[in-house]
Amino acid sequence: MKLNVLTTGNELMAGDIIDSNSAMMAEIFEPLGWRIHKKVTVGDDLPLLCQEIDQLCADGDVLLINGGLGPTVDDLTAEAMAQVCERPIQEHPEALSHLQTWCQQRNQSLSKANLKQTRLPADCAIIANGRGSAVGIRMEHRGCLMLATPGVPSELKQMLSEEIVPLLRGRFVSDHIRTLRLGVFGLGESTVQERLSDAIPDWPADIELGFRASMPVLEVKLTARGEHLGDKLSQCRRQVEDALCHHVIGELPTSLPGALIEACRQHQLSVCAAESCTGGLIASQLTSVPGASDVFPGGIVSYSNGLKKALLGVSASDLEQAGAVSETVARQMLSGALKACGADIGVAVTGIAGPGGGSPDKPVGTVWIAWGSHSAMQSQRLVFPFERAAFQQWVSALALDLLRRHVVGVDEFPQLMQRFCQPASSD
Amino acid sequence: MKLNVLTTGNELMAGDIIDSNSAMMAEIFEPLGWRIHKKVTVGDDLPLLCQEIDQLCADGDVLLINGGLGPTVDDLTAEAMAQVCERPIQEHPEALSHLQTWCQQRNQSLSKANLKQTRLPADCAIIANGRGSAVGIRMEHRGCLMLATPGVPSELKQMLSEEIVPLLRGRFVSDHIRTLRLGVFGLGESTVQERLSDAIPDWPADIELGFRASMPVLEVKLTARGEHLGDKLSQCRRQVEDALCHHVIGELPTSLPGALIEACRQHQLSVCAAESCTGGLIASQLTSVPGASDVFPGGIVSYSNGLKKALLGVSASDLEQAGAVSETVARQMLSGALKACGADIGVAVTGIAGPGGGSPDKPVGTVWIAWGSHSAMQSQRLVFPFERAAFQQWVSALALDLLRRHVVGVDEFPQLMQRFCQPASSD
Repeated sequence: MKLNVLTTGNELMAGDIIDSNSAMMAEIFEPLGWRIHKKVTVGDDLPLLCQEIDQLCADGDVLLINGGLGPTVDDLTAEAMAQVCERPIQEHPEALSHLQTWCQQRNQSLSKANLKQTRLPADCAIIANGRGSAVGIRMEHRGCLMLATPGVPSELKQMLSEEIVPLLRGRFVSDHIRTLRLGVFGLGESTVQERLSDAIPDWPADIELGFRASMPVLEVKLTARGEHLGDKLSQCRRQVEDALCHHVIGELPTSLPGALIEACRQHQLSVCAAESCTGGLIASQLTSVPGASDVFPGGIVSYSNGLKKALLGVSASDLEQAGAVSETVARQMLSGALKACGADIGVAVTGIAGPGGGSPDKPVGTVWIAWGSHSAMQSQRLVFPFERAAFQQWVSALALDLLRRHVVGVDEFPQLMQRFCQPASSD
Repeated sequence: MKLNVLTTGNELMAGDIIDSNSAMMAEIFEPLGWRIHKKVTVGDDLPLLCQEIDQLCADGDVLLINGGLGPTVDDLTAEAMAQVCERPIQEHPEALSHLQTWCQQRNQSLSKANLKQTRLPADCAIIANGRGSAVGIRMEHRGCLMLATPGVPSELKQMLSEEIVPLLRGRFVSDHIRTLRLGVFGLGESTVQERLSDAIPDWPADIELGFRASMPVLEVKLTARGEHLGDKLSQCRRQVEDALCHHVIGELPTSLPGALIEACRQHQLSVCAAESCTGGLIASQLTSVPGASDVFPGGIVSYSNGLKKALLGVSASDLEQAGAVSETVARQMLSGALKACGADIGVAVTGIAGPGGGSPDKPVGTVWIAWGSHSAMQSQRLVFPFERAAFQQWVSALALDLLRRHVVGVDEFPQLMQRFCQPASSD
C-alpha cells in the first residue's frame, strides 16, 4: 500500500502550531508495516489544495487528508474534494443527523457555522467521528482511496484506531513489524555508528538500524519486518549492547531517571539530590517517573549560599574561600543532603548556569558535581559550553547517569562527557 | 518570493519525532512577510528526494531543504542535490576546514563518519554552521535558490537568523510585519475570543488577531502589516489587556515563572517552594529564568512524609490523621519552607500525581495548594482530571500564577481553574 498524507491549514504554515498529527498517524501505522510515503502541507488555498489532492491520488493507493473540516470559511477540504471529483456540494443526511445528535448531547443549538460541516461532496461516504462535530469524508479518485479527517488530535486519534485502521486492514496487506529502541547516554551518534559497524560488520539485511538524536539520550532503533524475526532481533540487541556496553541505559521508553530509579529499586538504595545550578531539575526529572517515591525521599534546592549553609551544613569559611562553585562545597552539599534526606546515595551540583556570574577562573558553564555515598564519594569539575537551558539539561542528565553508573558498579565516566572534564587544579 | 520547504528523514515518516523545524522557519520568516507556500516531507529515499527537489525547484523561488546532512549512511541530501544538478560529489575544502576546526575545539579526532559531511556537490557554496559539524549547502537549480540545512534544531535556528535571513533579504522583498504576543493564563480560548469580541466590536481591519494554545499559557497574537501601525498596535494591546485584565501575564517571551520573578523583584520579595507532588518542577521552572537568584533562595522537595516532618516541621500526628494530602499539611509545609528558606512568600503543594495512590476520598489528581506569607496565607483544594505529567505541569503553573497574583494584589482565582476547585469539606 502506498500511503500519502496531506495536511492543511494556515496555522501550520505560519508556525502557530506544530504538526503532531502526522507523527500520530505514523506511530499508529508503523506496527502494521505501513509507512507514509510522502507528506505534503499547504495552507487554506483552494486551487493549491485541489492540485495536491489530484497529484497525490495519482501517485498512491491511499491519501489521508487532515484538517480543513471545521466550521469556518477557511476550512476548504470538502469543497476541494468535491471539485477534484467533479461533484456538487450538498447537505449530507448522515452528517446532519450526526451533528444534531452531537448538539443535543451538549444542550447546544445548531449554529449556521456548524451546518457548514454537513455540506459534503454528493454521494460521498462518511467516516464516523466519536468525539467531535465534523464527520470525516471517504471518496475514491483515480483509483486512490481518499480519507479526510478533522485536525483536532483527539478526534483524529479515535477515528484512526476505530475507523480507518480497520478499513485499511480490510483492503490492504498489513505486516508484522517489531521495533526495539535502546536509549544510549554518553556517546555521540557518529561514535555509536562507528562502534556498531566495527563490532557488527555483517549486519543482517532484514533488521533495519536507525538513530534518533533526542538529546541528551540517543536512541538506537532496531526494526524487524516479518513474523519470524524475534530471535534475530534479540540477537542484534545483544550485539548492540555488547558494543556500546554501559552506555546503554535500557529499552525505551526507559529514561535516564527511569533507569536510575529501576537500578536503585533493584539494589534497594534510596537516592537524594542537592541542587544549586540545576535548581530542582534533577528532582523534577526523578519525580516525573511514576513510583519515584519508592527510592526518592526528596531533595534540597539550595540556590543561595545561605541555604547551602542552613539546610546542608556547608561551611561558611569554605564558601567564602573556595567559592560556591568548588569541589569542597559540592562534596559538603552532598554530605549534607545525604544526612538531611536520610538517603543511601545522592548527587550534588553547584555551577554557573549563566548568562551572568562567570569569571576568568570559573567561566559560565563551570560545574562541580559530587556523587555517591558517604563512604564512596566522587567529584568532578566540568565546563559545558552551552547556554543556560542546555547547561541545566546536560548537568541534570549527567548527574542521573553518574548515579546510575555508581549503583550498577561502572567506574568509567560517560565517554562523550570526558571532553568537558577539567582538572580540579583549574579551580 | 515563493518559498517551499522540503524536510527529510525516516524518523519524520515513522512518527519518531515531531517536525518542529518547519514551525521554527515559519516563525522566523513571518515578521518579514514571507510565508511558506508548500511543505513536503519524505523519508530517506534517494530517487524520491531527487524527484521532490526537482519539482519544488520548478515551482518556487526558494527551496529550503532540512535534514539529511548528518554523518550516517541514511543522510542523503548532499547526494540528492548533486544528482539533481548533475554534479559529482567531492570533498569540499571549506567544509573540511570547518570540520577540522570543530573537532579541534572539542579535542576530538576526525572520524570517518564525520568526513562524509565534507563530501558535497562539486562547486556548491556552503552555509556556515556556528554550532554543529555539518555545513549547509547552497546551490541553484531551475532558477530556484536551494538552501540545505541540518535537522538539529539549535543549528538550524542559528543558521536561519545569521545566514539565511540576511541572504534572502538581499535578494527578495521583505515586508514590515509587527507581531505582539501576550501570554494569558487562566482563561480558555473561547472565553478569550468572546471577551475580546464583546469588548472590541470594531476590531481594526489592519490588525490580525490570532490565538495559539500552548498550554498552560494561551498566546494572543496581534499582527500589524505595514510600517505605520505601531500606535494602532499599542492601542489594541491596551484594549486586549483591559478586556482580559489580570489574566494577562505579559508580553511574550515572558513565562509564568518570569512574570513571578519580575513581580517579586519589583516588590522586593523573596520566594520559596515546598513541593511534594510536583517534585521540584516549580523550583526548576523558577530557576530556568536567568537572574532567578535575585528573588529565589531555594526550595525543598519533600517527597516522603519523613522529609515533610524532618525538613519542614510538619506534625506527625496531622500527617497521620489528615493525611499527606490535606489542608493542614499544605499549610504547615508552607510555614516550614518560609522559615527554612528565610523567604517572604512561598507556595506549598501536596497531591496525588498518579497513576497510583488514589482513594475514593482523594482520587488521583487531588492537590492541596497553600500560598502567600506567614501573615497572609491562603489554601485551596483542586482535583485535576489529568495524567501524571499534565497534572504536574498544571499544578506548577497554577502555583506560579497564584503567587504572582498574591504579589501584585489580585484576589481572584484564575477563572479557568475554578472548575477544578473543590470545597475543603470533601477532604
